[in-house]
Parts: sequence; C-alpha cells; structure tokens
Amino acid sequence: MSSWKDPEIAGVRALLASRQPAPGEPLPSRAERRAAADAFGEMGSLPPGCFHEPMAIGGVKAERIVPTGAVEGRRILYLHGGAYVGGSPRSHRPLVARLADAARSAAVSLEYRLAPEHPFPAAVDDAVEAYRHLMAEGVWPERTIIAGDSAGGGLALATALKLKDEGLPQPAGLFVISPWADLTQSHATHETKAGDDPMIARDRLDEAAAEYLGGTDAKTPLASPVFGDLAGVAPMLIQVGSEEALLGDSLLLAERAGHARVEVRLEVWPEMIHVWHAFGGQLGAARRAIAAAGAWMDGKLV
Amino acid sequence: MSSWKDPEIAGVRALLASRQPAPGEPLPSRAERRAAADAFGEMGSLPPGCFHEPMAIGGVKAERIVPTGAVEGRRILYLHGGAYVGGSPRSHRPLVARLADAARSAAVSLEYRLAPEHPFPAAVDDAVEAYRHLMAEGVWPERTIIAGDSAGGGLALATALKLKDEGLPQPAGLFVISPWADLTQSHATHETKAGDDPMIARDRLDEAAAEYLGGTDAKTPLASPVFGDLAGVAPMLIQVGSEEALLGDSLLLAERAGHARVEVRLEVWPEMIHVWHAFGGQLGAARRAIAAAGAWMDGKLV
Repeated sequence: MSSWKDPEIAGVRALLASRQPAPGEPLPSRAERRAAADAFGEMGSLPPGCFHEPMAIGGVKAERIVPTGAVEGRRILYLHGGAYVGGSPRSHRPLVARLADAARSAAVSLEYRLAPEHPFPAAVDDAVEAYRHLMAEGVWPERTIIAGDSAGGGLALATALKLKDEGLPQPAGLFVISPWADLTQSHATHETKAGDDPMIARDRLDEAAAEYLGGTDAKTPLASPVFGDLAGVAPMLIQVGSEEALLGDSLLLAERAGHARVEVRLEVWPEMIHVWHAFGGQLGAARRAIAAAGAWMDGKLV
Repeated sequence: MSSWKDPEIAGVRALLASRQPAPGEPLPSRAERRAAADAFGEMGSLPPGCFHEPMAIGGVKAERIVPTGAVEGRRILYLHGGAYVGGSPRSHRPLVARLADAARSAAVSLEYRLAPEHPFPAAVDDAVEAYRHLMAEGVWPERTIIAGDSAGGGLALATALKLKDEGLPQPAGLFVISPWADLTQSHATHETKAGDDPMIARDRLDEAAAEYLGGTDAKTPLASPVFGDLAGVAPMLIQVGSEEALLGDSLLLAERAGHARVEVRLEVWPEMIHVWHAFGGQLGAARRAIAAAGAWMDGKLV
C-alpha cells in the first residue's frame, strides 16, 4: 500500500527504510544491534521531571522510573521487547516513562536475562522473581500492572500464567503492546501482512525463537502463552497495529483469553506498525495509544 | 459452569430459566413473542427526564429518544435486535435510552421492517434510508453513531457497508453489542459455548436466518457483514459476553475489520451473556458496559 491516511506513519516508514542495511551488506553483530537499541532509547526524551535510576529486585537488575504524578504504592512491572535476544531498560526508557506517566504510576523496568546466553525459562523466572519481590516489599497486587511490548508482551502473559501455576495473586491488569505470544508463528497474518510490516520478518522471528527456546517445544505455554490455559489471569488490554505480521498473535490471544472468561480489551490501531508507541515524538497515534492505555491502567489500579 | 464470580449474573440466569417454556410445551406464537418483547421493554425504567415520542424518518417508523444531557446535533441511529424477526423500539427503549444518556446524544430507534413479512434486504434498505434522511435534515455524519445489538449489530455493519457502496459518508462510529454478523453460524463458539449460553440456540438462529434471507445466500455481505470488505468503514466498538454462542461473530468481526485497517476496539466481558446491557437494573456489569460505550461514543462525536 503506497498511500497512508496518516502522514506521520509515512514519515516513520521512511525513517525505518533509511536505517535498513544496504542489500548484500552483512547484518550488524548482536552486540552492535543491542548497542544500537540502547542508543535509540537514550536519544528519546522523557516526560518533564521524570526520574530514573538503576536498581535491583530479587537479584535481577532493573531500572526504577518515577514520573512526577506517580500515585504512592502503584507499580508497573515492565518487560521490554527485543525478541528475547535484545532490548533493555535503556532501549525502552522513553516508552516506559511515557506509559508510567500516563498511568500515574512508578515503573520497574526489568533487565531480565536474554537469550541465547540465557535461554527459556530464564526470562520468565526473572519476571516472576521480580513480581514476588515487589509483593514482599509490600506492593499490593491490586496496585500492580504487568506490561510489556513484543516479546515482553508475551513474557507478561507467560508471567501471569506462571503466577497462576504457583498460586500467587494476579496483578490488577496486564497491558501488552503488539505481543509476540505464539512462537510457532502459526497465524495467517505472517503471510497476509508480510508486505506491509516494515519491522518484523518471519525468518528473524524463527531464528530468535530458536535461540530463546534452546530446544524447548515452541508450543510450551510459558513460551507461547496463546497455547496456555488463560482462565483466571488478570484483565488485559491488548494494543496492536493493523499492519503487523504479529496482528494474528493479538487476535489469537483475545480469542483464547475471552473464551476463557478473561476480561479482554483488544484495540487494533489502523495503519500502525509494530510497537508504534516507541515513536511518541513522531506519531500522534502513539501518544493517543499511550494516553488510552494509561487511562486503562489508571482505572485498574486502586 | 455452576458457580459464577459475579453473583448478579447468576440471578439473571435464574430469571431467564424461569421464563423458559416447560418441556413439551409449544413455543408461543410469533405475535405472542413480539408482544412479550415489547412488554419487557415497556417494564424497564428510563433515565430521569428522558423523553420519547413516535416519529417517522424517510417513510420508516421510528422512536425519538432524548435524554436530558443530549448535546445538540448528535444522533445515535439505533437498530434493535430480535434475529430480524422480532424486537422493536418499544422492546429496546430502556436500553437505547441508557446508551443515549451515556453518550450525551439523542437517539432515533428505528422500526425497520421485519422478516418473514419483509425479508432481506428490507431492513438494510430501511436503515440506509433513515441515515440518508438524517443527513438530509442537516445531521452531520461526524455527529452520528450507528449502533445496534444482536441482529441490529449485524444490521449496523451491513448499513456501513451499504453506505460505502453508495458513496455516502460513514458515521463517526459503529457501536455493536453482541452482533449477529455471520448468518452461516460458522464459528466454533456455536459449539464450545452452547452449554453456557442461556439465550441463543443454533436451531433458532438457523430458522430466523432462513426467514430473513428468504433464499438469499447467507454469505451475502449485506446479510453477514463478516464476509464483506470492511475497509473504509467507521471506527467500531464491539462489546460481547464471554458466554455467548455468538462470541465468535465478534472475534471474526474484529479480525476482519482490524485486518482491513479499521479502528477496532473489541471488549470481551467475562461471564456476561447475549446483550447483557438489557439487564441494566440487575447487572452492575451492564451499567459499566453502557458507561464505557457511552464514553467511547461521546469521544467519537464532535
């Protein structure tokens, strides 16, 4: 599709195209890609007065992000994207800060262990450990949201499943952006949206899935939560762009969770791309999505 | 499922069970069923100060409903449910009044022609005719919502498709409650939710579909809008209960519309049943759903 109703998304697409390696040029190394993601985040601006500092929680490194209007006692446990092999609290700092600001809550942005150095279930273990320590520190589940984008969205759902397995209380809500929740890439949107998705290529997903899984079956619910029994998990808000190869993950998730009597709100944002929220400076639709999600989280947190 | 987390829904289920004909007893006649639906609506209370009167629009009978806080110039064109063979502005008056009140808008509740007396496409023709006359009277599309429940939800979507076909402007939004949007009953939820749905039985749907279609193919987009090309239709809010045999219609609709770059918000409400909004006096979840839908419509209407 050559013309977009939203002129801003065309600009973002041009920016993304300019950053693609030239044909024949080798991909940057993993270390270079991780450093570039961090640099992208470090470039972004934070809401005025928003504070951040390194921390550790239950032995897991993290970053504490406190917007000026944060209501005492609230926490967003944020799980960044990056296909389980990249990303960090630094790469996602502006996004997390804007979401936390919109939800009037402090955030703990987790530096969970990455594959291939630390394959499944290291990331899930880290997220559950962090949640458990938040509770031990006196944060109420009713005042906690678990949120994440892309792989971090899948991880948020896996964490909710694991909490259920362990008899721990669910948080007040799950907010997932463009979640990667099916590591088998089973949905037709991997075909039908392939030509319109400027960010997600199936072979790269398969590669990252193999590195993360390290031999575990891709249908394992804690790796691909759409295959889990979602009954009893917290209310969820799913935001996804209409141009995503991963659109199908969100559709499947809404279907599975809704069927299992979970409170579900699925929002499909027309013309938007994978985790468009990260382009808050460029896209009005990013700011509107963050505002809508913030209002939803604010409403769920007592 | 014998125990529900929401005690109010258990009460509504008991009420519905008490109204079922005893085994072996014949179904009431069509005229009796239509009269009973009207009586259900006439029993319900309206928001204080809400005004209603009969009207006609473009030769179609209707009811005008004006809540006290209605913003001048706004209109909800409401299309009641009843499987295309029943229902009326009278049966749905309390529901429409509460929705209009929540959206701060007057409503025109249409008495479109019913099957089998008037098969497809009479209902679609009436809805398009009413919309066209609203425009001719000076109501802006940007200040109009087309809304409906069950068959009326499917009809709202069919109307939007027909407006597109005729080059007429889309309304500001489409709000559909538990829409019946697939008259082929193709989705698995007709099986998986059959035991939990106290209102919708597949054989009754098939019977009503046959009466409405009068020989037209059930896959005709103006009868089953999930089979239509939804690109370019107005933003839509879909609210559906997790216990509905028709849950799949909403899932399919969200999938088809989202894929086609329509702004979609799908809400699955746990434990709720077909058009639970009609039990506003009994269910807090009905009042909350109406409030959420009202806020969405209020935000879409300039």
